[in-house]
Amino acid sequence: MDTIGVDIGGTKIAAGVVDEDGNLLAHTRRDTDPQDPAAIENAVVAAVSELRAQWDVGAVGVAAAGFISPRRDGVVFAPNIAWRDYPLRERLALGIDLPIVIENDANAAGWAEFRFGVAREARSMVMLTVGTGLGGAIVLDDMLLRGSFGAAGEIGHMRMVPNGHYCGCGHEGCWEMYASGRALTRAARNAIITDASRGQRLLELAAADGGKVKGPHVTAAAAEGDPLARELVIQLGHWVGAGIADLVAVLDPQIVVIGGGVAESGDLLLEPAREEFRAQLSARGFRPEAQLEIARLGNEAGIVGAADLARH
Amino acid sequence: MDTIGVDIGGTKIAAGVVDEDGNLLAHTRRDTDPQDPAAIENAVVAAVSELRAQWDVGAVGVAAAGFISPRRDGVVFAPNIAWRDYPLRERLALGIDLPIVIENDANAAGWAEFRFGVAREARSMVMLTVGTGLGGAIVLDDMLLRGSFGAAGEIGHMRMVPNGHYCGCGHEGCWEMYASGRALTRAARNAIITDASRGQRLLELAAADGGKVKGPHVTAAAAEGDPLARELVIQLGHWVGAGIADLVAVLDPQIVVIGGGVAESGDLLLEPAREEFRAQLSARGFRPEAQLEIARLGNEAGIVGAADLARH
Amino acid sequence: MDTIGVDIGGTKIAAGVVDEDGNLLAHTRRDTDPQDPAAIENAVVAAVSELRAQWDVGAVGVAAAGFISPRRDGVVFAPNIAWRDYPLRERLALGIDLPIVIENDANAAGWAEFRFGVAREARSMVMLTVGTGLGGAIVLDDMLLRGSFGAAGEIGHMRMVPNGHYCGCGHEGCWEMYASGRALTRAARNAIITDASRGQRLLELAAADGGKVKGPHVTAAAAEGDPLARELVIQLGHWVGAGIADLVAVLDPQIVVIGGGVAESGDLLLEPAREEFRAQLSARGFRPEAQLEIARLGNEAGIVGAADLARH
Amino acid sequence: MDTIGVDIGGTKIAAGVVDEDGNLLAHTRRDTDPQDPAAIENAVVAAVSELRAQWDVGAVGVAAAGFISPRRDGVVFAPNIAWRDYPLRERLALGIDLPIVIENDANAAGWAEFRFGVAREARSMVMLTVGTGLGGAIVLDDMLLRGSFGAAGEIGHMRMVPNGHYCGCGHEGCWEMYASGRALTRAARNAIITDASRGQRLLELAAADGGKVKGPHVTAAAAEGDPLARELVIQLGHWVGAGIADLVAVLDPQIVVIGGGVAESGDLLLEPAREEFRAQLSARGFRPEAQLEIARLGNEAGIVGAADLARH
Repeated sequence: MDTIGVDIGGTKIAAGVVDEDGNLLAHTRRDTDPQDPAAIENAVVAAVSELRAQWDVGAVGVAAAGFISPRRDGVVFAPNIAWRDYPLRERLALGIDLPIVIENDANAAGWAEFRFGVAREARSMVMLTVGTGLGGAIVLDDMLLRGSFGAAGEIGHMRMVPNGHYCGCGHEGCWEMYASGRALTRAARNAIITDASRGQRLLELAAADGGKVKGPHVTAAAAEGDPLARELVIQLGHWVGAGIADLVAVLDPQIVVIGGGVAESGDLLLEPAREEFRAQLSARGFRPEAQLEIARLGNEAGIVGAADLARH
Repeated sequence: MDTIGVDIGGTKIAAGVVDEDGNLLAHTRRDTDPQDPAAIENAVVAAVSELRAQWDVGAVGVAAAGFISPRRDGVVFAPNIAWRDYPLRERLALGIDLPIVIENDANAAGWAEFRFGVAREARSMVMLTVGTGLGGAIVLDDMLLRGSFGAAGEIGHMRMVPNGHYCGCGHEGCWEMYASGRALTRAARNAIITDASRGQRLLELAAADGGKVKGPHVTAAAAEGDPLARELVIQLGHWVGAGIADLVAVLDPQIVVIGGGVAESGDLLLEPAREEFRAQLSARGFRPEAQLEIARLGNEAGIVGAADLARH
Repeated sequence: MDTIGVDIGGTKIAAGVVDEDGNLLAHTRRDTDPQDPAAIENAVVAAVSELRAQWDVGAVGVAAAGFISPRRDGVVFAPNIAWRDYPLRERLALGIDLPIVIENDANAAGWAEFRFGVAREARSMVMLTVGTGLGGAIVLDDMLLRGSFGAAGEIGHMRMVPNGHYCGCGHEGCWEMYASGRALTRAARNAIITDASRGQRLLELAAADGGKVKGPHVTAAAAEGDPLARELVIQLGHWVGAGIADLVAVLDPQIVVIGGGVAESGDLLLEPAREEFRAQLSARGFRPEAQLEIARLGNEAGIVGAADLARH
Repeated sequence: MDTIGVDIGGTKIAAGVVDEDGNLLAHTRRDTDPQDPAAIENAVVAAVSELRAQWDVGAVGVAAAGFISPRRDGVVFAPNIAWRDYPLRERLALGIDLPIVIENDANAAGWAEFRFGVAREARSMVMLTVGTGLGGAIVLDDMLLRGSFGAAGEIGHMRMVPNGHYCGCGHEGCWEMYASGRALTRAARNAIITDASRGQRLLELAAADGGKVKGPHVTAAAAEGDPLARELVIQLGHWVGAGIADLVAVLDPQIVVIGGGVAESGDLLLEPAREEFRAQLSARGFRPEAQLEIARLGNEAGIVGAADLARH
């Protein structure tokens, strides 16, 4: 049975038809306004209708950022969209006469990697989505961990540093503030304050982009070989690895997958993450070690995972 | 069906007959030498035989500190006993003609609380065993999490403080070094170095006990109302709560249970733990909050949990 | 001999005539634009002329934020005004035919407290100016410490927390980010994010002031007894005390004076600062302890100190 | 005028005749017992007498670990010898009819470097003595800073890491626990716990020395090129540099000198110290930078400095 996956982002939605092997058969997009829930729903309905015009599908999976209700029918809280205890499934059901499930976007992407990507041979996995923020998905014994209130996997808010960087969540020292695109942005700007001469390439890329230095400028400059940018990505990799050591101590998964936009740095990120993970892993040498790998499915992982979760 | 639970400690074993409701029907003990695996096995066999002489039981569960093999038949690594990749089930089977399962001791105690103790109405739970060290047990969707290599729940080795206190594991800043009896011992001794006048009662208790200040002196003095001891237990409670916030961010359990010897401090430990947990919990207010409770089953939890796990 | 002291702030200058006992005999002000060095100089010249019209003075001392040249004739770098290696004395001398000395503003305020304020009986002192930022002045053996490059006393940039809060200077964990009005602002806003119900009074004060919560709202609410505000000031007091313990370990002064706008909280700030200082002071009990006191001279300290330094 | 310098260590005293240019003209030693103050005094008197038999000297300077009274006539507290408010000058004067001054040993060594060593052209200096512990000496405007209670320069007890390693002083996170021979010992042992394969050379050196791994084994192995040992010295160098950045922010000296046994690692220590110092120095680029240099005078610095201080 083919199914549709929908990935609701801050400013656009992406939807696609996915087969049972995780292949994306068709694809469409809509721009949306995060302030307008009704418009988002209309866009989802329209995208699903467009795809169904040509494909026979059995269910729809919808991925969105935020806490999802345990029954997977609504959004308890979303960081970027004006949803609070929002009955998203019921609203979408007004325009879609198929079974619908709602899922957290990092969970959907993680599930795709687990079923069809780099973790497809594992039975337990942790996936980090290192994008603007830091999200997580946890699969244990082939089951996606949702938590008793739908809030499991909020790994970005583990405290890495007491009295550390302030996070948008109001706390200090959250892992996300050391291991995310936002962290890369902040670290780059501060490195330039302390020594502007090292930031020439970053400043050029930012200027060409019409503004201040941001995370993607750092990953781009690192890919070119810029010394400061490489150093910043390596430092981020160390923080990624340090937190993974904590997760592995708790969860003992077979594999840890690193995805999200920052993961496009590939080995430059992966190697320091592995190094720090090994250095920090408790009882190393007395236990097999979880593998660390970069995700394979890229931006489509959310659609693919949501579609597959709708099937089960 | 009644079953036997055996709890192998560093210097003694305790065994008991447990019914299906978690009641301890009979109980026996043996002293052992942690350096002598054969003697430990003989003691287990003798204890089981003694109990079976009067009770009809269907299985034996054995709890021990260390990493347990995923198939629950051996010990990969034990911190206090000379076991390395040790086929404990096979060895015990030479003297016990019943099904035997091996389980990590913190897991066994946690399972007992989950099945028969303070968490018996929950479907997901994290339990901290705050004894000399800091152990953990994780139950998700009614299943005990063992991990892909039998090493899940090593919560005591999450890093709380970068460049923090050295741990016996060789790393710095492990949670165990801030939230355990060992941490309490160290904090007390250092507080006395900086201001001996505040440590009079602790020094008296230690002297009466023939030696240096240790964790149990602190919990005893705190129970009496000694100001320094109370402050030390409260501080430990804050560290307990801080780490729980991390675990809840990852696992989103319904309940977190605090057990082990230090938990005998009760509310004096629980209140600051709750306070810090709430202060650190990410997205508090947008999600139901896990309950924090003190364990109920005391020292027998290991026996009861091991016996129950043998049944399943 | 009476002298004039001038305190150049970001948006205004204040000047006054000061006698040899530190009494402020006359006083005047001008608004200024930090982007316009020439306008600042004109304002200083005008203020000095106004005062000289009625008073006979022998010298002029000028206090400004920034690194002052070792010969006290110019500004090497100012954080808020467009001065870089700026020959301020030479520029002012075009309009003022008196001896002129330039001094760092925190040094001037500290010198006033040392000569005429709470530290007037001491021979060595450290003063913290806890205003928007955190400045310092150090007096040793009756001499103001300027440093070999005019940059001594930059205590706000000692690192209190590795990987801690980002500072405007580009570094992480500077003391200023934990012990200043800016720190209070940030801590208040974040506390409100994690629990808005506790921030009602702060939000009211900020709304009445037409904007977001700032440090002065916190000190005002704390003075009224608001629980969150009190907690925030106490926490800041602990950070103040922790850093003082470091300074005392290095400098061993007789007295440490806490001034600046935040110091208006008085005992509410001082008590936790003393507590933490004593708790952190190395070898306490084997040495006399430096006194901690709140500054006495208030906003006029910069004028009084600059005037007195011009005399010597 | 030639003078005698005496350096009182834990288990031996060393004394020498020093001329006005800091040359050591003659030298003698005695073994001593730190538990026996009278024996120490006899040994000092005997050593001085031996030297005076052949040399005409005008004064005696005595260096010892501990807090020295402001009048330089006694020891307020010594960490290794049974002196508490001890009138050492008066006691020694019973056997020595020359002017005697007492000085802290790190101060004496620092003074020697300032007068005759690597800092001889500077007017202000901080010296770190990185031996078993971490001591400091501060010279400002050609004056040795003693502090108002004789306790200045206790730089090893600045807190580098909140909740960091426990120090013998009872506090957590003291710089000494990250930047001293003791720190090197601890870091080496823990690195070997986490990965014994990397510690082969260190274990060999320790075995040949009849015991456990210690700091000098690490510096020796690092000099040979052993990878783990080099890494440990480099890490220590980073901590040295980080703390120097704090001291420079406060004191703004012209030069920072690194001495003590660990400084024998030379550039291997100095380069990472410089790197971290520059990375952490506040307002770098807007101010001249203090030089960082390795000390030149070696073990005799204490004698030379004490002798010179006796002259003034």
